[in-house]
Amino acid sequence: MSNRPTLDELFEHRVTYPDVDAHERLGRLVGLGDHKAQLTKILALLVNPLGLESWAKKHHPSANGIVGSILRRPPLVVLAGDVGAGKSELAETIGDAVARQERIDITLFPMSLSTRGLGRVGEMTQLLSAAFDHTVTEASKLKSASGKSRGAVILLIDEADALAQSREAAQMHHEDRAGVNTLIRGIDRIGNARLPAAVIMCTNRLRALDPAVKRRAADILIFNRPDDTQRHAVLAEPLKQLGFTKPQIDALVAATGTTKDRAYGFTFSDLTQRLLASIVLDAYPANAVTAARAAEIATSMMPTPPFLEGSK
Amino acid sequence: MSNRPTLDELFEHRVTYPDVDAHERLGRLVGLGDHKAQLTKILALLVNPLGLESWAKKHHPSANGIVGSILRRPPLVVLAGDVGAGKSELAETIGDAVARQERIDITLFPMSLSTRGLGRVGEMTQLLSAAFDHTVTEASKLKSASGKSRGAVILLIDEADALAQSREAAQMHHEDRAGVNTLIRGIDRIGNARLPAAVIMCTNRLRALDPAVKRRAADILIFNRPDDTQRHAVLAEPLKQLGFTKPQIDALVAATGTTKDRAYGFTFSDLTQRLLASIVLDAYPANAVTAARAAEIATSMMPTPPFLEGSK
Amino acid sequence: MSNRPTLDELFEHRVTYPDVDAHERLGRLVGLGDHKAQLTKILALLVNPLGLESWAKKHHPSANGIVGSILRRPPLVVLAGDVGAGKSELAETIGDAVARQERIDITLFPMSLSTRGLGRVGEMTQLLSAAFDHTVTEASKLKSASGKSRGAVILLIDEADALAQSREAAQMHHEDRAGVNTLIRGIDRIGNARLPAAVIMCTNRLRALDPAVKRRAADILIFNRPDDTQRHAVLAEPLKQLGFTKPQIDALVAATGTTKDRAYGFTFSDLTQRLLASIVLDAYPANAVTAARAAEIATSMMPTPPFLEGSK
Amino acid sequence: MSNRPTLDELFEHRVTYPDVDAHERLGRLVGLGDHKAQLTKILALLVNPLGLESWAKKHHPSANGIVGSILRRPPLVVLAGDVGAGKSELAETIGDAVARQERIDITLFPMSLSTRGLGRVGEMTQLLSAAFDHTVTEASKLKSASGKSRGAVILLIDEADALAQSREAAQMHHEDRAGVNTLIRGIDRIGNARLPAAVIMCTNRLRALDPAVKRRAADILIFNRPDDTQRHAVLAEPLKQLGFTKPQIDALVAATGTTKDRAYGFTFSDLTQRLLASIVLDAYPANAVTAARAAEIATSMMPTPPFLEGSK
Amino acid sequence: MSNRPTLDELFEHRVTYPDVDAHERLGRLVGLGDHKAQLTKILALLVNPLGLESWAKKHHPSANGIVGSILRRPPLVVLAGDVGAGKSELAETIGDAVARQERIDITLFPMSLSTRGLGRVGEMTQLLSAAFDHTVTEASKLKSASGKSRGAVILLIDEADALAQSREAAQMHHEDRAGVNTLIRGIDRIGNARLPAAVIMCTNRLRALDPAVKRRAADILIFNRPDDTQRHAVLAEPLKQLGFTKPQIDALVAATGTTKDRAYGFTFSDLTQRLLASIVLDAYPANAVTAARAAEIATSMMPTPPFLEGSK
Amino acid sequence: MSNRPTLDELFEHRVTYPDVDAHERLGRLVGLGDHKAQLTKILALLVNPLGLESWAKKHHPSANGIVGSILRRPPLVVLAGDVGAGKSELAETIGDAVARQERIDITLFPMSLSTRGLGRVGEMTQLLSAAFDHTVTEASKLKSASGKSRGAVILLIDEADALAQSREAAQMHHEDRAGVNTLIRGIDRIGNARLPAAVIMCTNRLRALDPAVKRRAADILIFNRPDDTQRHAVLAEPLKQLGFTKPQIDALVAATGTTKDRAYGFTFSDLTQRLLASIVLDAYPANAVTAARAAEIATSMMPTPPFLEGSK
Repeated sequence: MSNRPTLDELFEHRVTYPDVDAHERLGRLVGLGDHKAQLTKILALLVNPLGLESWAKKHHPSANGIVGSILRRPPLVVLAGDVGAGKSELAETIGDAVARQERIDITLFPMSLSTRGLGRVGEMTQLLSAAFDHTVTEASKLKSASGKSRGAVILLIDEADALAQSREAAQMHHEDRAGVNTLIRGIDRIGNARLPAAVIMCTNRLRALDPAVKRRAADILIFNRPDDTQRHAVLAEPLKQLGFTKPQIDALVAATGTTKDRAYGFTFSDLTQRLLASIVLDAYPANAVTAARAAEIATSMMPTPPFLEGSK
Repeated sequence: MSNRPTLDELFEHRVTYPDVDAHERLGRLVGLGDHKAQLTKILALLVNPLGLESWAKKHHPSANGIVGSILRRPPLVVLAGDVGAGKSELAETIGDAVARQERIDITLFPMSLSTRGLGRVGEMTQLLSAAFDHTVTEASKLKSASGKSRGAVILLIDEADALAQSREAAQMHHEDRAGVNTLIRGIDRIGNARLPAAVIMCTNRLRALDPAVKRRAADILIFNRPDDTQRHAVLAEPLKQLGFTKPQIDALVAATGTTKDRAYGFTFSDLTQRLLASIVLDAYPANAVTAARAAEIATSMMPTPPFLEGSK
Repeated sequence: MSNRPTLDELFEHRVTYPDVDAHERLGRLVGLGDHKAQLTKILALLVNPLGLESWAKKHHPSANGIVGSILRRPPLVVLAGDVGAGKSELAETIGDAVARQERIDITLFPMSLSTRGLGRVGEMTQLLSAAFDHTVTEASKLKSASGKSRGAVILLIDEADALAQSREAAQMHHEDRAGVNTLIRGIDRIGNARLPAAVIMCTNRLRALDPAVKRRAADILIFNRPDDTQRHAVLAEPLKQLGFTKPQIDALVAATGTTKDRAYGFTFSDLTQRLLASIVLDAYPANAVTAARAAEIATSMMPTPPFLEGSK
Repeated sequence: MSNRPTLDELFEHRVTYPDVDAHERLGRLVGLGDHKAQLTKILALLVNPLGLESWAKKHHPSANGIVGSILRRPPLVVLAGDVGAGKSELAETIGDAVARQERIDITLFPMSLSTRGLGRVGEMTQLLSAAFDHTVTEASKLKSASGKSRGAVILLIDEADALAQSREAAQMHHEDRAGVNTLIRGIDRIGNARLPAAVIMCTNRLRALDPAVKRRAADILIFNRPDDTQRHAVLAEPLKQLGFTKPQIDALVAATGTTKDRAYGFTFSDLTQRLLASIVLDAYPANAVTAARAAEIATSMMPTPPFLEGSK
Repeated sequence: MSNRPTLDELFEHRVTYPDVDAHERLGRLVGLGDHKAQLTKILALLVNPLGLESWAKKHHPSANGIVGSILRRPPLVVLAGDVGAGKSELAETIGDAVARQERIDITLFPMSLSTRGLGRVGEMTQLLSAAFDHTVTEASKLKSASGKSRGAVILLIDEADALAQSREAAQMHHEDRAGVNTLIRGIDRIGNARLPAAVIMCTNRLRALDPAVKRRAADILIFNRPDDTQRHAVLAEPLKQLGFTKPQIDALVAATGTTKDRAYGFTFSDLTQRLLASIVLDAYPANAVTAARAAEIATSMMPTPPFLEGSK
Repeated sequence: MSNRPTLDELFEHRVTYPDVDAHERLGRLVGLGDHKAQLTKILALLVNPLGLESWAKKHHPSANGIVGSILRRPPLVVLAGDVGAGKSELAETIGDAVARQERIDITLFPMSLSTRGLGRVGEMTQLLSAAFDHTVTEASKLKSASGKSRGAVILLIDEADALAQSREAAQMHHEDRAGVNTLIRGIDRIGNARLPAAVIMCTNRLRALDPAVKRRAADILIFNRPDDTQRHAVLAEPLKQLGFTKPQIDALVAATGTTKDRAYGFTFSDLTQRLLASIVLDAYPANAVTAARAAEIATSMMPTPPFLEGSK
């Protein structure tokens, strides 16, 4: 018991929603409206299952079977897609939307990378078990006798493929297989106890996820690179602050999309982490940013190549 | 002895038939009539071998050899086929049909995923042995001195390929090989003792099953994706409850079959777990479900791709 | 010594010939006449080497070298070929023919699957050594001072490829290599001591056998799927007992051969284990078997696909 | 604690800037001006974050969000590209430019090759952790309460691919995976504590770097082989000292570029380590260097072939 | 010392030449005249190095360098080629020719297959070392102070590829590598001490031999399948003893060569071990052998397929 | 300390130059003049660095930077190329040329093959460390306070690829990686201490050498198969001694080069070890060598195939 991992070892920077920062970040996630809505609904039902029953009673009074079937879905959502497409950002902020809608506190437990362990046999399993133990303990406190719980917990597993690799891959290690089993058991524990908790897994290797894990997903949301509208929404505000005109902004939006030289545009993080930073650092410390130089930088920068799952 | 795994560790949610829930679920398994009938007969003979002898005496009095040969078949049935085709659902509910037909109690022991162990050498073998020990112990209590037993046990091994991988795969580990041997010995123990017990294995990788395991199968039932009739049977009732008309239901049945864009339709679980849930959640919480929107959702949703055994 | 494996652990259901059941089963092995004759002769010479010398003295008095050369061949026969082609059945029953011809008792030691061990280093070697120790001990008791022994032992190794995998496969494990060496030494021990014992190995992966093992084989008998005559011989009697007419039997014989849709017919075990059982169970419990329904079943049933050695 | 690796074991020849030797070497790095400028800026911001804020206040007073976003970038820069292209040379000397610009002392901690460990399980992780511990300890001492720190630390990880191999490579060992995690945690520790420290990783296998590591890079600078101008800058001075005329120098610059026989020219180190040395040694000890013989040597020497990442 | 392997464990059936049986077997090796002569000379020189010097003195008095160079060649000969081509047979009998020519006793130490060990780390190395220890000890006793030794030892390593696998194969195990080193050291020990001993290695995978081993071979003799003359020489005598006429013998010689259906003929061992035995057993016990039936058997029998090194 | 390997275990037959035998062997290395000269110079500079400085002072008084840069090159030379091309021969004898030129004693430490160890974890590293310890200890004794040392040490690592395999090979073991690190550290130790010692590595797999090792090489000398002039130089003397005329010698030189049937000629060792020996043994003991028979032998003999690095 003494060497049981602590909360700080298991989880990176826990967040409790509503949270102003998350609210803002979620607001900046342009173009992911459908995913936001669907994820909010799924998570909200875990907190407040009575909501769906009331709805059914009102709109479809004879639909008795289907509501139960939906509420029995396992508490797992998989966010899958290309790198930098906003999966992690949405996963880290969606709790705010649910918290505000359902007027309760929601806590995010982002599973630490270190949970993957150091390769000692049995360690990954132990760490994963501990993570689910904490999640179950916290969520149990929040469950109310009546329908709506007093709060909820989201367990976030980023880069989930490392933990839940498909058994189709013949050379899978026993250690990894044990990780998959612990995951499945953990999800089932939450689901069976009808706790106000959900697991969100992010992956850019959907195909590598174990079928038994995918089968447990209530939903699998697919993410793509940002289109013109989305890139505009990301770039417009900071560029305006730097003094860019609308045509200058549009030029950068175009330059960061697909071009005749490459079949893919910039990712969300290419735009925010790399492009904007390079434009600023290029001017710093001597000059002000100019639109002409920014266009040059955008044109010469290569977006992150897509993660080619098929090439493996 | 002290660290021998307990019943709860070995088996997930044991079920004793007759069981109302299983009865209903079995009833909803439309289009699997042949498999139901065949599986019921095979299991029934294990409980009541006198039945076949009486039948032969009545219908084929001179067929003395063949009856014995059938009764000597090993107590193993393999359910093989695509994901979401109803294998697990049938395996988990067929016991109800047998229990009602033979008027005895039947208990299902669904082997827990954790039985696969954590990768410690010898662990998988030990867990499998324990599972068969429990099965044999329980079945022995139920065997009666005369022909018909007082009850029966079904040991269910889902995703069996992980335990019984073919030795054709050169890189098979010793641990896995030991698992295969324990399986074979377990099946033989039940068969040799003529216990009222059967093993059902489900797999979507029939080719990956060890030939020595396949050779022991009394029967191998192949499952495919639902055809139009089967999809209609699944969708009709819940959609009717939601207020759909017959033509609206037919449209959804068509939309979930093979289309000109893809060579495969929805699986059973695509229909029940994903499509119906998405239709409801799309409307929830503000609106009622409409057939037009449901059709849109069905058209934009991709069915689970088939598990491509050949691509490995 | 205490953890030395017992006879029961090493060998499955030992049989002593002459044995009525084996006699009958051997009799049912239609179309394998050449293999029966050759195997009987090889085994008989191990028991009674004087037979060949008398024969040579009578028929070929000047053939002095060749007789010695034949008697010096290692006591190993390999039965190779497709699954369900009768290899195991012949191996398990041929002892009866030899026992009756030579008028002595012969004991079959069928090496248990568990002899493959649980993957512990050195275990396979230890179990194999023990198996050969038992074989040598038993055979030594039976050897007589004069030419003809008082009995003989057959050590049967089914699915031998697992034990004797070719070193051509680069990734062969040391454990497996040790198994090959123990096999070779065991065969040489029997041969050098001129004991009345023989080893029969069955495999459906002849190419995977280690060349050093194949080189030691006195003979390698190749088995194929049953042809029309053989299938008729298998099906005629039970079908007649079920009331089928000759044309109806012939129809089933044809339906189970190669067809325009597939390049291979039913195996021996497809016929006896699967087809006949399905025909009976289809009728049971309500109806009598009919030839029309039997034909339908035979047509819709797929024979076991050949074990494609080349595809590996 | 006793077997904790010492500073001397962890780091090769630590350097404190400003340093005359580094200053000269950095000066000789012709043609890498852009990389020099960018790297200097990134490192300078870690030491003096107030600089960027002052700049923004002056040039872009309304750009409040973007500055914080840049300052929050992880303290990691990746230098990637072909062998001998100057990556290591720049990494080992850039600290001098930053030290002079910001008028503080900067210490380089070049991670020793031995940090990769001897293959004992857990060793690489332990050594890496120790390296980050030392870095964090030293940097913490230098952090000032106000904006600008009293000094800074650069942790240099050369040939970083060995430590941070991509998890896309299926056969990655647990030991390596643990190394990746330790790296990521170490970078995050420095970043979260806002310490005046940066990590520079050099690699000629950018693709092999783990995506989670690449994602944390504030910037990835790509290095190529020297072009004509760069080769001239490297060769002109030493050749002039040896008495070469300008046309003779130009001839050697041309001879060491791409030719019709090969698609790649000499690397920086081909020029300095191999070509100049061969020209001198060819003359030594009997003769003086001649331009004619030097041209012959340059023509007959093969440049180092590019590291073909794609060929793996 | 106590667990040092004994002579009987290390070597199978040691033979001392001159030996009548070996003499006869060597005599039957038709068509291998060149190999016989060359191998005899090489081995003879190890026993009696003065022979070559006398010869040179007589025929080439000024050829002083070349004789020493030949006598300094390592005491290793590799016999390589297809299975059943007579490599082992020649290796096991050539000692007789040398013993008779040089009028001394020669002992053959055929390294036991068990020398390959059971896979325990270090075991193969230990066994090989022991084998060379024995060889060196025995040969040392036989070395005389003057030129010609009183006897000689031949260490035979059959299927040598298993021990001396090429390091070109990337996945070679340390254990195997250690085996190669022990071999090389052993050969060098014999050579350096100028002992009357030689090592003969047989392999059907010449390419798999480690280059460092091949480089040490004084000669590499390549073996092919028998041609018409060789097959006739093998078959003529035993068939004549069975009463065959010359045309009947010729027919069998032709039937066992290449045919229009296959690109390869029978191996030496196919002829002696399999074909002749089958002809006799087919007649035994009731009939005499007839040429007609023998021709049928030869036509229906398949020769051993060549060991396809290239296919790996 | 007690189980520290001894000098005899670490090194095969140490040699101290000047040495008559080495002098002769070096003299016979025809056509490798350039490599001889370059290697001599590199090694001589390690012993007597003042030489280069005096030379520069005399011939290029203003070339101040380049001399220091040359003297700072790591003390490693790599000899790379095809099997039998004279790499090892040159490495084992070049010390004699240096010793005579610089008039000091030089000792060759040829690293024993056994240094590769037996595969025990950590063993290779320990042995390599010990080898470098010995080298450093010996060289330290020889270093003089003034410029020229009293002697020098050459550490020879033949077949170096086994120790210094590239990390490009993904499946490299930790043990091997540790070996690479120990090598690099050892070379750096010698270089940093400016000891009169050098490391020569020979390999026929240059590409397999770790880039970090190659980068440390002061020079990489490439060896090819002998051309006509070189083959003539090898064959002329011994053939003349055997009584061949010039045209007869020329014919053999031609026959051993590339022919229309093969793209490569004989290696140095093919000529000296195999061809000349075969010519003599063919005649021995009965006849004298004749040119006609020698030509036949040369024509029928196959040269060693090139080591195809690319084919891996």
